Amino acid sequence: MNKEKHILTMLVENEPGVTARVSGLFASRGYNIETICGAPTADPDISRITVTTKSRSEQLEQILKNLRRLINVVKVRDMTGAEAVKREMALICVKALPENRPEIIRIVETFRGRLVDTGKTHYIIEVTGGQEKIDALLTLLEPMGIKKVARSGILALYRESD
Amino acid sequence: MNKEKHILTMLVENEPGVTARVSGLFASRGYNIETICGAPTADPDISRITVTTKSRSEQLEQILKNLRRLINVVKVRDMTGAEAVKREMALICVKALPENRPEIIRIVETFRGRLVDTGKTHYIIEVTGGQEKIDALLTLLEPMGIKKVARSGILALYRESD
Repeated sequence: MNKEKHILTMLVENEPGVTARVSGLFASRGYNIETICGAPTADPDISRITVTTKSRSEQLEQILKNLRRLINVVKVRDMTGAEAVKREMALICVKALPENRPEIIRIVETFRGRLVDTGKTHYIIEVTGGQEKIDALLTLLEPMGIKKVARSGILALYRESD
Repeated sequence: MNKEKHILTMLVENEPGVTARVSGLFASRGYNIETICGAPTADPDISRITVTTKSRSEQLEQILKNLRRLINVVKVRDMTGAEAVKREMALICVKALPENRPEIIRIVETFRGRLVDTGKTHYIIEVTGGQEKIDALLTLLEPMGIKKVARSGILALYRESD
């Protein structure tokens, strides 16, 4: 069976060492963490960690089981599939040669991005969306000269069943 | 001396175990990772990890030194201060009672947020900005009933010096 990308969300107690325990579990089994996001929720004692990883379904079952056993891990959910909203943010620093600026701005508008910094020779663009959208934007900006990229990794929230 | 919030950005090799080593370093010294973001850069072999932590300046020096010694860590930079663009993304699931909807939509527009999911009894809102902006939005939405929050943690990119 092929490895598939999975998105896992955990609610964890906001204490020193929790991120290390969660990422240590992946490391000890040799699973790569492709992206990770972790930050406190509306309750400052609880953080939400979202991890994307590539694994076979039977490995995934094992990961979920082991995560649920970890100290400080309150809840684990597999967010792969259509019932969750999945979004990512990227900051992209691109060379802004005068002759390329109109084209860059046109691309940014098409992707509903925002210019969050404009310098003499660069723009910093903020964009949100699915992973494919951000990949597509990077491909379009590539010929202009991408200087730096920071991506948040995927965040996911279940749509309420109502 | 008081603890201050610091934003650290690392370029690391995209290999299993790197996130665990980085977060393990914080854990072994008892420093809390307040937020963490990690994802590949434009170069798929290199990931960027951004961590926010509260620490005293002399502790910070030590953390930076130890991070630079870690295997697979290519570069470490302290992004605290005004020379970096700092942005965060949040997904907020809020109760959408019919009588509250116009007010929620007004608030979302004021914060330049986006409705990314609308259900019979909820909205999911996406918003980006500084940490304070997102905190302020959460405070305003609180009376409507916040069901769930996922925050990316801070992403930071240096403004090019030009």
